[in-house]
Amino acid sequence: MARYKKVVSVLVDNQPGVLTRIVSLFGRRGYNIESLTVSVTNVPQVSRITLVIEGDEHMLDQMIAQTAKLHVVQDIFTLDYDKSVVRELLLVKVAADESNRGAITEIANVYKAKIVDLSVGSMVLELTGEQNKLDGFLSILGEYSIIEVCRTGITALNRGAVHSEGQ
Amino acid sequence: MARYKKVVSVLVDNQPGVLTRIVSLFGRRGYNIESLTVSVTNVPQVSRITLVIEGDEHMLDQMIAQTAKLHVVQDIFTLDYDKSVVRELLLVKVAADESNRGAITEIANVYKAKIVDLSVGSMVLELTGEQNKLDGFLSILGEYSIIEVCRTGITALNRGAVHSEGQ
Repeated sequence: MARYKKVVSVLVDNQPGVLTRIVSLFGRRGYNIESLTVSVTNVPQVSRITLVIEGDEHMLDQMIAQTAKLHVVQDIFTLDYDKSVVRELLLVKVAADESNRGAITEIANVYKAKIVDLSVGSMVLELTGEQNKLDGFLSILGEYSIIEVCRTGITALNRGAVHSEGQ
Repeated sequence: MARYKKVVSVLVDNQPGVLTRIVSLFGRRGYNIESLTVSVTNVPQVSRITLVIEGDEHMLDQMIAQTAKLHVVQDIFTLDYDKSVVRELLLVKVAADESNRGAITEIANVYKAKIVDLSVGSMVLELTGEQNKLDGFLSILGEYSIIEVCRTGITALNRGAVHSEGQ
């Protein structure tokens, strides 16, 4: 069966244990959650969980139907990559001294990355964008000595004036 | 006992089910996971989970010791807010037309937010920064009609040339 990578958005009650239930439900079925972000929305009682999941389409539809039945789930829907703003944040720490700080800064400028920390032996760069852009940036920085990488995983919403729900 | 809000960074094997185990462990103890991000690092076999957790300090130390014992956990450590780069990404969709597009753009400029989508009836703004900055931005935009909010939750790493682990 065809395998799909889907962005799933889940609006849930902001209570202890809810995240665990959602993650367990997907985890038990052997889905690899490629990325997960969770945070409160503009309504403090509601959290939004954004998952990137790989699996076959039929199974994914079943999972979504099953998750939608939980009483802590207010809404669940998939997002279409082409019609969505999909963003991820990356922090990367690179070893840098006088000899290569200029070259690394040039790469940062091309990607419009921000330099958010500078020490005697290192720089921390911040970049946001789609996954491909972040991957490309990391691949070029791979010519230098990367000390550490942190990525948030993606968050996403539909383009246009519509609310994502019910799309 | 004193309650603390801590940033906990966990480096784990990138395998199905690992996230579920970590989240369950914290969830079972009734910890409210305020924010969680997970993504691969520069080593494809290793994922990094960044949690913001509220709880009493003694319990949190116990949890960390217990989590460290799991064989899928390569490292776990807390980050000190003052010595770390802490970042979160926000996407917010605001209802906007000819009459208020200019005013919203001005607010975006002050915060150095990017306009990533513009339609007849709405704008999508992207902003990165510490939680307080994002909260402030949302609070000002609250004067307008917010359609949707997505936040990634925070990711963080230590300032300076050191690797976060073992700090």
